[in-house]
Amino acid sequence: MLEVQCEFQVDWSECDPATIVYNPNFYDWMERSINQLLDAAGTGIDKVLATDPDFRGVPLVKASADFHAPARFGDVLVRTCRIARLGRSSLDLEHRFFLGDTLIVEARQTRVWSGVDPDDRSRIRSRPIPDDVKSAFEADRVVRIRSITEG
Amino acid sequence: MLEVQCEFQVDWSECDPATIVYNPNFYDWMERSINQLLDAAGTGIDKVLATDPDFRGVPLVKASADFHAPARFGDVLVRTCRIARLGRSSLDLEHRFFLGDTLIVEARQTRVWSGVDPDDRSRIRSRPIPDDVKSAFEADRVVRIRSITEG
Amino acid sequence: MLEVQCEFQVDWSECDPATIVYNPNFYDWMERSINQLLDAAGTGIDKVLATDPDFRGVPLVKASADFHAPARFGDVLVRTCRIARLGRSSLDLEHRFFLGDTLIVEARQTRVWSGVDPDDRSRIRSRPIPDDVKSAFEADRVVRIRSITEG
Amino acid sequence: MLEVQCEFQVDWSECDPATIVYNPNFYDWMERSINQLLDAAGTGIDKVLATDPDFRGVPLVKASADFHAPARFGDVLVRTCRIARLGRSSLDLEHRFFLGDTLIVEARQTRVWSGVDPDDRSRIRSRPIPDDVKSAFEADRVVRIRSITEG
Repeated sequence: MLEVQCEFQVDWSECDPATIVYNPNFYDWMERSINQLLDAAGTGIDKVLATDPDFRGVPLVKASADFHAPARFGDVLVRTCRIARLGRSSLDLEHRFFLGDTLIVEARQTRVWSGVDPDDRSRIRSRPIPDDVKSAFEADRVVRIRSITEG
Repeated sequence: MLEVQCEFQVDWSECDPATIVYNPNFYDWMERSINQLLDAAGTGIDKVLATDPDFRGVPLVKASADFHAPARFGDVLVRTCRIARLGRSSLDLEHRFFLGDTLIVEARQTRVWSGVDPDDRSRIRSRPIPDDVKSAFEADRVVRIRSITEG
Repeated sequence: MLEVQCEFQVDWSECDPATIVYNPNFYDWMERSINQLLDAAGTGIDKVLATDPDFRGVPLVKASADFHAPARFGDVLVRTCRIARLGRSSLDLEHRFFLGDTLIVEARQTRVWSGVDPDDRSRIRSRPIPDDVKSAFEADRVVRIRSITEG
Repeated sequence: MLEVQCEFQVDWSECDPATIVYNPNFYDWMERSINQLLDAAGTGIDKVLATDPDFRGVPLVKASADFHAPARFGDVLVRTCRIARLGRSSLDLEHRFFLGDTLIVEARQTRVWSGVDPDDRSRIRSRPIPDDVKSAFEADRVVRIRSITEG
């Protein structure tokens, strides 16, 4: 199954007066991972929206997380996100955050491919994951993203 | 056990292009609830820090959540946070978000009362919850917070 | 002209490792003020959108700010936002933040009433401020918002 | 004078229901630029703090910005930040955001090198910018940061 790995540095703004990462940022980083996963699958939300304006993303329905150790300003972390289960319209994601070799946070999410409900356009409803997205998710492939500095 | 209930309105900034609340905001709101709970216990982090500069807050170690329905810009939500278990240095919190009578999100967190590790001041370590905080947490009391508009 | 005043407490999450407010939060709070101003004018963005789905808010075009003193976790601040100039489709807002009697931050913004460009629906374009909104903005009225705690 | 240029992609979370970037994110991005500038000068806040625990960052005292055009989810932007004036303890920064060749946002900030006030440790006070930082800031050098994807 598809996996993305993204190396990033904890920013000043992401830490609180206890000088450790304010925990909702881990949830924000997981959201960024899923966008990177969709991009890696050749199907970023912007691309899906361009062909299907009624697409409404992949909302979260269930989540659990364990926080083993804090992260601090300046720490270089690697976050990984891989598809752990792929259903008809739902999928499970496994997220991990590493500081060096140490696993500091791990989480699991269930999410649902969603669009405007045709019977009530003010609501959203699950829909089957498109076949081309499914194929891209099923590929045994690891995509690595990192920042480089030049000059 | 102590419970806080806070009524608030979903802001424009808290919603994403799918026009629903970006889910990390629910985690941010839970953090705000725990600060309100500490305040309600007469022991806000600022007060603890004033008497104990080595206090490092109540970091999250375990969390799970179920998202039953989305919330939208302008929705008036009530979030509740109550102490579900009170240990020597750890506690479990139960968070719920209501839109009218509908429970839209529920979550459970385990958190640990923490301070600077005296053996290695660059680290944090659990410490016993102070007795006066424990007594305040044990009180069967519901504190309600809401916004009022005048003029 | 219409003015809103909102009393609020600086949250833990809004402060950085220097233990002072991370400055982009002041800009976020100004955005919240404009939503409160629209609500006070009886014309919250949700209400406008319900009658005019092509409305696209009141984007910022010009801003300046002076930061005189920091704010800290637990500080109770009052932010004020008043209409300083009201044009055909643009308006100037004056924002102030007080800690007790001390003015800690002041800012001025120019914003434009906007909607979908009918000639190119992927773009947004200024449009005249509706007459009923203009009348509500012109009223010499101060609306006060604050949080109350009961129980 | 030192300049950093950082290429980045607008995330879903950074856009609001109008599908454009929520403007406080530009201010957050400017803060990230200054951290990158300090890193490029070999003097990231974490490094300064390690040798000088009383350092309190480079708080903002004056800011102005012009927003010429919006940015949207998926847009690849380049933000630049260069030192426009270097004083004894204060400096001016010029920030620009480009979408392709189009300048969409430009801003100017005055910031002050700060530390704990030795006469009142609850306060912060300006202090001279260290000589080695000044030399690094004065170098005519452009540092480019971008994200790469492999696999």
